Amino acid sequence: MTTVPIKTNWASSQPPRIKAPTQEQLQRLIAALKQGRYAVSGEELRSHSVDWWPIAKKRAQIEELAQPGLVLWPKTTAEIIQIMRIAQEEQIPLTPYGGGSSVVGGAIPVPGGVVLDTREMAEELQLDKISQIVTVQTGLMGSDLEERLNARGYTLGHYPQSLFLSTVGGWVATRASGTFSSKYGNIEDLIKGLRIVLPGGELLAFDPVARASTGPDLKQLFLGSEGILGIVTEVDLAIQRLPAQRIFRGIGFDDLFVGMEAIRELTQSDLQPAAVRLYNPSEAERILSLVGEPKGQCLLILAWDGPQAVVEVQQQLSIELCRRYGGRDLGSRPGDAWYSSNRFDVRWLTEAINTPGMIADTIEMSMLWKDARNVYESVTEALGRTATDVLAHFSHVYSTGTSLYLIFTLKGDNDAEVEQQYFRAWADVMNAAIASGASISHHHGIGLMRARWMQQEHGDTLELLRNLKSMLDPTGMLNPGKLLPEK
Amino acid sequence: MTTVPIKTNWASSQPPRIKAPTQEQLQRLIAALKQGRYAVSGEELRSHSVDWWPIAKKRAQIEELAQPGLVLWPKTTAEIIQIMRIAQEEQIPLTPYGGGSSVVGGAIPVPGGVVLDTREMAEELQLDKISQIVTVQTGLMGSDLEERLNARGYTLGHYPQSLFLSTVGGWVATRASGTFSSKYGNIEDLIKGLRIVLPGGELLAFDPVARASTGPDLKQLFLGSEGILGIVTEVDLAIQRLPAQRIFRGIGFDDLFVGMEAIRELTQSDLQPAAVRLYNPSEAERILSLVGEPKGQCLLILAWDGPQAVVEVQQQLSIELCRRYGGRDLGSRPGDAWYSSNRFDVRWLTEAINTPGMIADTIEMSMLWKDARNVYESVTEALGRTATDVLAHFSHVYSTGTSLYLIFTLKGDNDAEVEQQYFRAWADVMNAAIASGASISHHHGIGLMRARWMQQEHGDTLELLRNLKSMLDPTGMLNPGKLLPEK
Repeated sequence: MTTVPIKTNWASSQPPRIKAPTQEQLQRLIAALKQGRYAVSGEELRSHSVDWWPIAKKRAQIEELAQPGLVLWPKTTAEIIQIMRIAQEEQIPLTPYGGGSSVVGGAIPVPGGVVLDTREMAEELQLDKISQIVTVQTGLMGSDLEERLNARGYTLGHYPQSLFLSTVGGWVATRASGTFSSKYGNIEDLIKGLRIVLPGGELLAFDPVARASTGPDLKQLFLGSEGILGIVTEVDLAIQRLPAQRIFRGIGFDDLFVGMEAIRELTQSDLQPAAVRLYNPSEAERILSLVGEPKGQCLLILAWDGPQAVVEVQQQLSIELCRRYGGRDLGSRPGDAWYSSNRFDVRWLTEAINTPGMIADTIEMSMLWKDARNVYESVTEALGRTATDVLAHFSHVYSTGTSLYLIFTLKGDNDAEVEQQYFRAWADVMNAAIASGASISHHHGIGLMRARWMQQEHGDTLELLRNLKSMLDPTGMLNPGKLLPEK
Repeated sequence: MTTVPIKTNWASSQPPRIKAPTQEQLQRLIAALKQGRYAVSGEELRSHSVDWWPIAKKRAQIEELAQPGLVLWPKTTAEIIQIMRIAQEEQIPLTPYGGGSSVVGGAIPVPGGVVLDTREMAEELQLDKISQIVTVQTGLMGSDLEERLNARGYTLGHYPQSLFLSTVGGWVATRASGTFSSKYGNIEDLIKGLRIVLPGGELLAFDPVARASTGPDLKQLFLGSEGILGIVTEVDLAIQRLPAQRIFRGIGFDDLFVGMEAIRELTQSDLQPAAVRLYNPSEAERILSLVGEPKGQCLLILAWDGPQAVVEVQQQLSIELCRRYGGRDLGSRPGDAWYSSNRFDVRWLTEAINTPGMIADTIEMSMLWKDARNVYESVTEALGRTATDVLAHFSHVYSTGTSLYLIFTLKGDNDAEVEQQYFRAWADVMNAAIASGASISHHHGIGLMRARWMQQEHGDTLELLRNLKSMLDPTGMLNPGKLLPEK
């Protein structure tokens, strides 16, 4: 198994073939705006030079990052069509930007290039209460959508940790997952239709469909395409009624792998939890201390949404199942604590980034159950070479497998050393993940950080993605450097 | 709204640009077989000239259908690769053939062309009990797979009416649905990986993945591609444990649309039935008479699979919900009768086809809930112009919508008249479906019969499918005439 070498200069991920546009080209783009606004200088360029990729945020603490030459906030689809057409004609690199919450550099622009910020197209267009479908523009922030839905008795059931930082379009672009995915599905399960502007400026409308057998479901091409194949402007999302009941249960396990067997059994036994999170002792510690339970044990948090009589039976059977695996019922408090304390709080990350000689990050991946123990052991061992402590949990469980989420902090004598460690940690984990049979990302996506492992992840099938990219974006101007590694 | 004109000669759906291969070309293909077998004459050519498309079966009663020039039964992927390469080089039309259970002409070959029958590649390759994934070759018959799984305590949960007639590959090609789809999902939900030979002979391997965010899920391109983009040779399918309990309930409704509201409410209220089938009075009659209930009413059949305590609560809440809509609890017998009587029996269809001056067929479609009543009224009215009685049911329900399934018989003075009526009935229903907001097929697919409506179904997005076809099959030799209408 070949491993991808460590690379220490993240900015060099930007493909050298891409050139910054001229002033005339930028003016042509600006002229395409009829209602939208733009910026060619100032704080807006700086804020769009970075996303939530920790190493980029860290670098931005130390030095000025390369900025885009122009930020556009179109207000209409017609403007996006014009912008895309001009960018293709003039070969201007264009990076879509939503909430900027990518943790892998997915929204970092080409130096001097153009950013298309979607956030001024953030309307709810329609709420179909009969079919339970909401149609929104993709610049809408996730939390705004959820709040609007809740006020009318609905939920999307999609609660990524980035709920308050990310747009609906970002979810589509990255194949996002929410913590209640076991019940509500991932974003690809919620999207029933979409409108997309292709790089040439063509608008494709996939009308909402419950389910059909009328050829391949081609809108799937754009879910997870990370803005390299087009800009999704509107989506039709399946919504659910707010559940009659949402209940939590915490279970303690002495051994992580026994706990893992229990959640596999639970998932394969038809007990339909809405959320499943099994923490290793390091990550369990915070919640255990909040509820006064002894540390040093693994913690499983389960949640169910649904009619009271149903969820109570599911919970009871699940507790019994966990007991058969030696699980200790810790009652509802650990789950309540997880849910109500700081699920959406990312200060721990910001603080580490802001501390000299320190950085924190998360790496997640997915795997089949048969590989889960081996993956866990391989990647935590690999990460242990640089990180002193690894917080980890299994979540987003399926009958076939699970995701694994790692949280780690790196410390060094100075920022330069930490940056070296950072890329080493990533390379160690990615190489170990691939060698042990994991997929390199469950829901964070590829961006700049993981692009180098895409060939190993996909093998020959990556050529199909390259061919699609060439077909839809012949000049390669849309979000260059992301998702697909330069050859 | 433009409507597609009635077309009365089904054979003319075959694109005229396609030429039958020469004897030399056929010999080259035969030479590619190392272990597989072939036929160039006799009954095998006749049996491969037709599938389960009723009008083709009917025509075959009257006259000899145009036959393929060669049927190939490859035994290895290497042989398929060779065959595909030669077909592309020599521009030989090649039609994949599984169980031949397409009801829309999806497996009908080009006259004098080549048929690739997959049924000698029917091995189970692996059963991963930990990840609950079975890997099979796609020539395996559906019922054989289910029987093997049942013997070991598993089920695919995928029971199309064609279970005993169709191959796994056919399910992939058409985006098949089983009657218990509300619990187990449709085929696209079960497929975790696949291997496909592209028209140029390239083998692409999509390894099984629980779920990932590593770019678009490109295997989706091939689900529902009806054999025009490649030949899927192997699939990795998620399996489930046999449910602890499977229970049924029948509910009577006076009014179909009130019953429809009840099943929408049920589906949107988190009561997770595994199967939902709401029959109009005409279709309800057979089962009602089996269980001695009065005819003239609508019949809803519900099923739940799962742990006993869970399904009993779900059933109880569902009965209460239906009662609020005026539903009458008819106990478990109607469901038992449906399940155990003749779900897989298609003699009624064969008998109608074999009767002079008569034909029967089914047409299904999908729609959002908001359009369901309008679609039902429009398409049954349209079908009523030719058919004397329309049996209909809603099934495969989703939070966003439902499928509608029509069963009808046509009678005329002679076969020629019936054939005219047949195409008129189809055109009337397809045009009414599109005008009222339905998708033209829920799970039967497009084949030859529906290809003429694909442009209206998909609008501008059909061009994307055409471009994919050109990219993957530049000579257009793979299953010509299917799915995509000739321009």
